[in-house]
Formats: sequence, C-alpha cells, structure tokens
Amino acid sequence: MFNRVALIGLGLIGGSIGLALHKAKAAQEVVGYDLGKGVSDRARKVGAIDQAYSTLADAVRGAELVVLATPVGTMRALLQNLATCVTPGAVVTDVASTKAQVISWAEEFLPPSVPFVGGHPMTGKEQSGVEAADASLFQNRIYCLTPTARTRPAAINKVSAFVEALGARVRFLEPAEHDGQVAGVSHLPFIASIALVNTVTASPSWSDASLLAASGFRDMSRLAGGSPEMYRDICLTNSEAITHWLDEYISTLRTIRNSIAERDKNLAETFANAQELRQQWQLSHDIAE
Amino acid sequence: MFNRVALIGLGLIGGSIGLALHKAKAAQEVVGYDLGKGVSDRARKVGAIDQAYSTLADAVRGAELVVLATPVGTMRALLQNLATCVTPGAVVTDVASTKAQVISWAEEFLPPSVPFVGGHPMTGKEQSGVEAADASLFQNRIYCLTPTARTRPAAINKVSAFVEALGARVRFLEPAEHDGQVAGVSHLPFIASIALVNTVTASPSWSDASLLAASGFRDMSRLAGGSPEMYRDICLTNSEAITHWLDEYISTLRTIRNSIAERDKNLAETFANAQELRQQWQLSHDIAE
Repeated sequence: MFNRVALIGLGLIGGSIGLALHKAKAAQEVVGYDLGKGVSDRARKVGAIDQAYSTLADAVRGAELVVLATPVGTMRALLQNLATCVTPGAVVTDVASTKAQVISWAEEFLPPSVPFVGGHPMTGKEQSGVEAADASLFQNRIYCLTPTARTRPAAINKVSAFVEALGARVRFLEPAEHDGQVAGVSHLPFIASIALVNTVTASPSWSDASLLAASGFRDMSRLAGGSPEMYRDICLTNSEAITHWLDEYISTLRTIRNSIAERDKNLAETFANAQELRQQWQLSHDIAE
Repeated sequence: MFNRVALIGLGLIGGSIGLALHKAKAAQEVVGYDLGKGVSDRARKVGAIDQAYSTLADAVRGAELVVLATPVGTMRALLQNLATCVTPGAVVTDVASTKAQVISWAEEFLPPSVPFVGGHPMTGKEQSGVEAADASLFQNRIYCLTPTARTRPAAINKVSAFVEALGARVRFLEPAEHDGQVAGVSHLPFIASIALVNTVTASPSWSDASLLAASGFRDMSRLAGGSPEMYRDICLTNSEAITHWLDEYISTLRTIRNSIAERDKNLAETFANAQELRQQWQLSHDIAE
C-alpha cells in the first residue's frame, strides 16, 4: 500500500488513476494538482483525490509516488519544476504516449535521488476530463513501463505495484521500442483518420457527399475528433518513428492504388490478407467492438 | 402497395428489405431467390420472404418490382439472365455500391419494356447474411436513386415508393456523381483501413506491437474485416473515382508526413481542422457513435 500518491494532472487518465487507487484501497492518501480552473475541486467531488493543492510543490511534498498525467507537451517544463520541489526518495512516473523524449528530460532534470520510470497505459476514451474518469479504465489493459539502464529495481517494483493496483498488466519495453510500436498501432491510426477527414472535406462535393457518409466514415473519422494539441505533441516527440510508419503506409496505399487503377483482380488477396489479420487480432484481444 | 416484389439475393440487405416490406405491409407478397445453399429457407423462416424459388425465372415471374440485392460482381451475369425471364412492365432496381457500371449493364441487357432505376441504401452492419437482417436497417437512412435520362417517371415513382416503404429517405443523384461521392466517403475509408492493417501487420514487430493496439487501432481496422470479394468488386467497378480519391489521400498524408518530419508546430491547425469538420459532420447526422 502506498502512503501518499500525488497526481499531477487530473484529466481522464489522472482522474481514473485516482478512482482506481481508491477502489483498490491502494493508497492512504491520493492528492492532486491541476492547472485547470476548478478541475481539482471536481476531481475531489468525484472521489478521484482526497485533497487538492494549488501549487505543484505542495502537492508533491512527502509523496512516495508522483504520477505525471499531463499532456506530453507540458512534460519538459513540468519536470524542470518538479526537480526543484520533489521529496528525495520519491518515485516519479508519467503516462505520456511517447517515452524516449520524456525520459531524456527526466534524466536531464530530476536529481539522482528521484528515480523516474516511464509509463504508458494502453487505454482511453473518446471523452476527456475528470468527469469521464472511470475506476475500471485500466482493468486488464496493457500498461507499458520503460525503465532504462539507469532505473533502479526498487523504483521499477514500486511502479509495477502501482500498475497492478490499477488492475492493469505490466509490459516492459525499451523506450525506443515502445515509441516505434505505438507509432504504428496508435499514432499512425490517428493521422490516417485526420488525413481522411481533411481529404474528403476539402472537396467541393463535401456538402453533398457528407449526406452519404455512413458508419464506415464514422468509424474511420472518429479519431480525428481527438485533441489537436495532444496529437501535435505526440508527433513532435515521436517524429522519426511516425514518419517511418507514414512512409510505409503511403507505400502500401500506392500499391493498392495502382492495382485499382489497373483493375487487378488479385486485389481480393490483398483485401483478404487484411481481413484475416484483423480477425486474428480481434480474436486475441479483449477490446470490445 | 405492391402486388408482388421479388428479392434476388437474400443476404443482409435483401433480407432486411423483406423484413421492412413486411413490417410496413407494403407488399401483398414478397418472394425470393438466392444461390446460397439453404439461404432461401432461412430467409423464409425469419420472415423476410413469403415464398422461396429455386430459379430466377420462377422468382421474377409476375413480379411488379424486382430488387437485385447481390454483390456488384454478380450484376452483369444476373442482368443478362434477368433479361430472358423478367415480365414486361416490371421495374428493376438494385442496391449495389457503385452505379454507373451497373446501369450501363442494365441499359445494355434489359429490354426497353423493363425500366431500371439504380439504387444504393446508405446503411450496413458488420455482420452479413440473412441472420443479421433487420427491419429497421433503412430507418431514416439516405437511399440514393440514380435515374438516367432514359428512366421513365413512372418507374422512378415506383422505386421511390419502395424506398419510402423501407423507412429510408430518397436522394436523387447522377450515377457518376454518386460514384464519385461514395468513393470518397465509403470506398476510400475501407481502403484506408485495409492499408493500415496491411502496413502495421507487415512489420517484424507486429506480434509485440499487436499487444499495444487499443481502441484507436480497433476503430481504424474495423472496415478491413469486411468481405474481400465485395471490396474488390467495388474497386473494379469504380476504379477511376477511387483512384482519384486515393491520390488526394496520399497527397494529404505526404503533407502531414513532411510537417511531422520537420517538427512543424502548425500541425495543430491541420489537426484542429479535422477535429472541427468531424464534429460538424457528427452533429448534423444521426448515426449513433
């Protein structure tokens, strides 16, 4: 059981962590800090935190575990500030979608007495904000941890215990390996969705065509509804891996485009390959359709 | 009210048409024909048709309205066969996803005494087959009709009445206009989904990365689970419009790719544009998320 856990950032993820820790009775006290007006109060009202603080220094004072649940774009400044006020011996972790860049900032700014273990829960929701927080958000989900050669085992154990308290399943990865893999299965999908929306809406026929858009367009455009700032920060901190995947995607599209232009009957094999692999993935994962 | 309606093809769409016609008491008799083993019997059991026939000629004899609800790939041969047995004065319509090619076959093969009105209901389901048929599948959905200069008003009126009986909303379009618009909002999305699945699964890291794939990948890969043969036939009969949209999509992706490679902070504007247009579309359409 944790003594005191400080949640920095009380949005969907931070709020859900607070609810899950309370539900699991995994911390004596969960405290929180959020820059947003009224966010801390709402987090307290929904039961995500026991106590809200109005400064970062007050929130992290005496905390055994500090969880940074803010957008990746704020991480650099946050880690710089945290370095000036965190209690020596505290363990710091984050939930950002990209890891190598965040870890390099953590290793640059945090004192050696404050170990950092990068984390990334593979979960989410369309809705954002503490109002959408859900104690079961992490249940049975993969939660990546990306320790480096510099991370001490005691810190890894502590953050692993935290992940298990949330009901999630720990998966250890190298930071670069994590970033490469999520670029493919998470970042490429949102860019494909955004590009689809920007492509079809740019046509003069969009106002008519939009009436014909049905469930296929709905599914493929859903991710484009996500936060532009969050997506930008992910792209800025995972530029190389995402660029690589976009090159691969464009190459695949070009091959299919040429087959369609040539009216190639073997297209069905290309499409059957996707169907089979999609079904395999679906059968081996417990993500509700 | 229709006298006798013949449904050729008793899958999800054909079966749902039968159920909807019965529910609306819009036909004295709904009869059906399907090449698939046991399909006609199952269609009768679920109440989609009153009578099953084992030949096309028997099914369409005396029918006032013939609805072709087979995959677009079968349409050419079906229209050739239909020409030999359809009752003069009957009106023929179809539900295929592409219209210009099907209409050219209809005008080539059907006798002048048998008017053809191309149709395309903008609805669907993940599941296929008559077991998934649903009387409310067309409720409040757009149903495109694509008459040509050769289509007589009486035939248009008859097919419009049929669409209204299903609970759908008629939208008239030129065949080429229809094909261009659905290529953007319906065919491009499934190709984007297939290409995404084929891209990320082709990587040696897929067996590891697949564990990190979450709801974003789920949504963006769902369409890739659709029928390869249906998708192929759509591509073969709407090659030009789809190729055009793929060129536009690849161009949009390339621009975003370059912005990401250059770590361009203005990416947020590109992403915000997609977010806003997606929200606008969502607000103006009644398709449940």
